[in-house]
Amino acid sequence: MKKFLAISGGVGGAKLGLGLTKILSEDQLSFLVNTGDDFKHAGVNISPDIDTLMYTLSGLSNQELGWGRADESWAFLDSFKTLGGESWFQLGDRDLAVHLRRTELLDSGQSLSEVTAELFSRLGVKYRCWPMSESKVSTKVYTDDSLLSFQHYFVRDHCAHEVKSIVFDGSEQAQPPQDLIEYFNDPDLAGVIICPSNPYLSIDPILSVKSIRRALACCVAPVIAISPIINGESVKGPTSKIMAELKLELSAKTVAMHYDGLINGFVLDTLDQQLVGEIEDTGCAVLVTNTMMNTLDDKTVLAQTVLEFCNNLGDLKCG
Amino acid sequence: MKKFLAISGGVGGAKLGLGLTKILSEDQLSFLVNTGDDFKHAGVNISPDIDTLMYTLSGLSNQELGWGRADESWAFLDSFKTLGGESWFQLGDRDLAVHLRRTELLDSGQSLSEVTAELFSRLGVKYRCWPMSESKVSTKVYTDDSLLSFQHYFVRDHCAHEVKSIVFDGSEQAQPPQDLIEYFNDPDLAGVIICPSNPYLSIDPILSVKSIRRALACCVAPVIAISPIINGESVKGPTSKIMAELKLELSAKTVAMHYDGLINGFVLDTLDQQLVGEIEDTGCAVLVTNTMMNTLDDKTVLAQTVLEFCNNLGDLKCG
Repeated sequence: MKKFLAISGGVGGAKLGLGLTKILSEDQLSFLVNTGDDFKHAGVNISPDIDTLMYTLSGLSNQELGWGRADESWAFLDSFKTLGGESWFQLGDRDLAVHLRRTELLDSGQSLSEVTAELFSRLGVKYRCWPMSESKVSTKVYTDDSLLSFQHYFVRDHCAHEVKSIVFDGSEQAQPPQDLIEYFNDPDLAGVIICPSNPYLSIDPILSVKSIRRALACCVAPVIAISPIINGESVKGPTSKIMAELKLELSAKTVAMHYDGLINGFVLDTLDQQLVGEIEDTGCAVLVTNTMMNTLDDKTVLAQTVLEFCNNLGDLKCG
Repeated sequence: MKKFLAISGGVGGAKLGLGLTKILSEDQLSFLVNTGDDFKHAGVNISPDIDTLMYTLSGLSNQELGWGRADESWAFLDSFKTLGGESWFQLGDRDLAVHLRRTELLDSGQSLSEVTAELFSRLGVKYRCWPMSESKVSTKVYTDDSLLSFQHYFVRDHCAHEVKSIVFDGSEQAQPPQDLIEYFNDPDLAGVIICPSNPYLSIDPILSVKSIRRALACCVAPVIAISPIINGESVKGPTSKIMAELKLELSAKTVAMHYDGLINGFVLDTLDQQLVGEIEDTGCAVLVTNTMMNTLDDKTVLAQTVLEFCNNLGDLKCG
């Protein structure tokens, strides 16, 4: 049976992830998720990207807000604020249950992989989800005059600062789950899909874990990435703002180049048709398709297209 | 200015406490509260008796439930249960904010006294409330075949077990707040009021702290206690059940005798009029009045009566 691994950051990755689950069973698909955004807040362990994927796959994500849980209420936060607690990170009552349970299980000695599997299972999601590291790796952003933790930069300060560089504290000591590394060598692995997440803030933390980067570089199965940049703009979030601040050309090609040496295939939006030649010249296969995912149908169609691309690249590799 | 100290456990103590605050200002009244029921649950520090007093004095207590906060919601607990979290201790969304904030402040290095002052102040309560100990003292109950933590006995198992004895783990090493001990020697101290709380589960933990017991025994100001037993029955909670299990006579007199050597005065309910002589024979002054506190007026009238009793006893002492 063919198996796939989806590498994901937050919302964009989870969207394609949802599409993939409409086609592949839990035996055929697993996830590797960024935990560079993880942090401790109000005494609880928060794993934003894991939760985004979990809520998306379980059907519990909040469609209106674009983050957090559906049917959310805010009594806790309202009271916490009155008590002098920080309120810039909006902890919903139901969302908080996830963080408290995660904290409780971690404190009892379980690994983040184990805790994640337990939470996914409790919410009815059977797909395996590996955190990139069992130990803490923290994405931090250098601005002109300070070093900010990711959540302070992203949520508290609404990405207002100009990013000079990004570091991943603890990546040297990162402990990727052992069975994740083994999965890269699974003879049934038919493709690794780097979802359309922010390359610098969501995918780079994962790639900063050396054994993961090495496993990806040495992977026999095709590795493809979907561009989060369409027509020179990021679909969501601060990707294009950060690219500008890092003096990078605002183009899907920049993303393809960023993954150079790791990917065999790159998926471009139809609006970026003109970039095909330039990217193919670097030795990377290119697929052009609609990459905007507004509806569930969009997600499933893109997932199907991406899987076919993987399969074709696999046939080429083996042929 | 005359000052008073009210020693309180849970609901019964808080009721009289509320009455006292209708008469005395924050310069005239402070509280000493049981923390033997404190425990860590779902990763957060819970101080049930401190919270009962805080919610009562701030007008936030839940009148219908008889515990917890008014306008409470349960989204957190509902979700926590789904995630495999324990639900026997009912953490409301707003209540949880108190526990999480307490935990956060304690983890930052503040003492329980400091944290309590901060929480009271945030909820608009200006009265000082001392925990009996900055360090952990845990009330535990020996049953026929097990040793149960207080909350397991009281909340989880609904006091179903037969109590053989009660211990206060950590009381030897207890650290009562220094300014509390000094307060007992304040020349303005005009009375110490042991509220009508469970003597065995709520007041004994406080008295198990040696320096508090000594301060009380040596206190120049009158010390009075209000019986939580009326007509051979406890007004609320398991007091009479526990007294029966400990083979104690179900009578207000038993409570008066329990405080022998510590109190100068005892307040009996009018239904227990016939006990006056027996208790007075032990050298303790007795006041008979209505001690049932259903309405705010009941509470205030009892508080006024108790304060006058204190004042009269003080005049006797000094005379």
